[in-house]
Amino acid sequence: MLKTPYLLFLGDAPDQLAAKVAQGIKDWRPEFALGQLRLEGCKADLGLPEMTIAQAKAAGAQTLVVGAANRGGVILQNWVTTLTEAAHAGMDIASGLHNHLSDIPELVKAAKGAGTNLFDVRVPQHDYPIADGRKRTGKRCLAVGTDCSVGKMYTALAMEKAMLARGMKSSFRATGQTGILITGSGVPLDAVVADFMAGAVEWLTPDNDADHWDLLEGQGSLFHPSFSGVTMALIHGGQPDALVLCHEPTRTHMRGLPHYSLPSLEALRDLALETARIVNPQVRVTGISVNTAALSAEEAKTCLAEVEARMGLPTVDPFRDGADRLVDALADR
Amino acid sequence: MLKTPYLLFLGDAPDQLAAKVAQGIKDWRPEFALGQLRLEGCKADLGLPEMTIAQAKAAGAQTLVVGAANRGGVILQNWVTTLTEAAHAGMDIASGLHNHLSDIPELVKAAKGAGTNLFDVRVPQHDYPIADGRKRTGKRCLAVGTDCSVGKMYTALAMEKAMLARGMKSSFRATGQTGILITGSGVPLDAVVADFMAGAVEWLTPDNDADHWDLLEGQGSLFHPSFSGVTMALIHGGQPDALVLCHEPTRTHMRGLPHYSLPSLEALRDLALETARIVNPQVRVTGISVNTAALSAEEAKTCLAEVEARMGLPTVDPFRDGADRLVDALADR
Repeated sequence: MLKTPYLLFLGDAPDQLAAKVAQGIKDWRPEFALGQLRLEGCKADLGLPEMTIAQAKAAGAQTLVVGAANRGGVILQNWVTTLTEAAHAGMDIASGLHNHLSDIPELVKAAKGAGTNLFDVRVPQHDYPIADGRKRTGKRCLAVGTDCSVGKMYTALAMEKAMLARGMKSSFRATGQTGILITGSGVPLDAVVADFMAGAVEWLTPDNDADHWDLLEGQGSLFHPSFSGVTMALIHGGQPDALVLCHEPTRTHMRGLPHYSLPSLEALRDLALETARIVNPQVRVTGISVNTAALSAEEAKTCLAEVEARMGLPTVDPFRDGADRLVDALADR
Repeated sequence: MLKTPYLLFLGDAPDQLAAKVAQGIKDWRPEFALGQLRLEGCKADLGLPEMTIAQAKAAGAQTLVVGAANRGGVILQNWVTTLTEAAHAGMDIASGLHNHLSDIPELVKAAKGAGTNLFDVRVPQHDYPIADGRKRTGKRCLAVGTDCSVGKMYTALAMEKAMLARGMKSSFRATGQTGILITGSGVPLDAVVADFMAGAVEWLTPDNDADHWDLLEGQGSLFHPSFSGVTMALIHGGQPDALVLCHEPTRTHMRGLPHYSLPSLEALRDLALETARIVNPQVRVTGISVNTAALSAEEAKTCLAEVEARMGLPTVDPFRDGADRLVDALADR
């Protein structure tokens, strides 16, 4: 969908965290990250070559990716000037922001004039079919979480990286805007119309070689009342052969819902298996990914060992330890 | 949302089944069904007074409801002429057809000129919030099915009717286009964007009197891979106190999916309870509704008795027997 390589636009990001989309691209698809463009006052820095639009274009950049969150939720004029310049120069523009590129008249005009494209990756780009539940060839692994934002995308990307390093056939399949910008394609599942959610996931993970693995990015949680329907569609559209449970051990309640406590990993395992078996009776939980960012190295070690002993499954923090043990566990699937 | 009473437009419906939306209105909201308008060749008849647009307007009709499926899936010119006449006469027009009233230029122009409204009830009419999972006052009953199209809407409507006859406070809450046309309001849940599904259901079933029951129309099935995400959002947004299991005993496979067999009522009970407890630990399955239309009276009696003995729950076909026993079972909730 998106043409690569990218010029990463950081705008006037107030801190490094505001540029996490750009950071994700640099971390997971460094070959896409040609350079960075920062405006005055930008506090984020990816350590990439600084480029003007003209320099990036000369170096072969195909798409300017808006890689930072903007201040106040709207694209201000100082951003629009740069984006319009990129469009005039013949580059596509891609953004995952809430407000859309296609709603900025001067940018639309510039892109039209130059014959380039504006990609609002939160907006579905296809008409997806209704799911037919047909068994597909190839294998699929889905990350499911005890909550939202516990590291499901990171886990799937880390597994893909480890698998490609071993020469295994695998593809990360993005289902959210950050994942789409990182990998250049995917389905913005939370923006798909209800009837077509599962069909969109089937479309995203089509028939493949028998030894090919899709690493399907999870969304929401079966236990999160706001988004559980999206998770259910991922499980039934994704037809997973393997499930990896994702967890954040210091979370005191479901994200955004102070009155809901987190489920146990056992409860997640049981409900995820029960629902996934409807479409794939052979599905198994193969491993556990714990996001221990809030723990010390010593605490993390203790936590991972405790979970592994309790659950009887390979348990890692892929950020600290890599995802090799999660990949090993797929071997017999 | 829709202004009542209605003139029911049957078009040139080829048979009675094609007019099932109009039939539903006449069955469940007879006070809305002022008259019928049929074109040449119409084979459906509701037994209502035949009215021209002028007669219906004079009798007080506020909305012309397209109450029949059209031939070939498109609204032909012979329908448009009548609909445009109704708009000119100052009536709103409502339709649940796939092709939209708002895509017919001459109808849009007529409605604009007369200051009337076109309601495509498959199109969401609100911006729904993201669900917050907050416990709401009042009580809610949700019909869940072993499959799609097993009688969930009929069951909820029959329960509402029985409750209102007893002077109980209750409201059928429509989640599909037929239910919306019948009752004049609701949420077309399968057309809502994924992120807002559960929030739309919360919006539809707000705080209410402690002794008020929402009878929430079910959609899809937890066991139907194409639509299970919609069902999950209904369960988590609906926060049901009571679940009624719906089943069609002669179905040999999931609707539209020849390679998927139906779950048992036991499996439906267990998975529906497990998922509903996440938002309401007090939820109970209170009864079973079996659609025995394909069975003889004798077979139906045997079937219902067998299910009741096996499941230990009041089991009825509300079409044959009414819904009183299902309502009785809510008493202790």
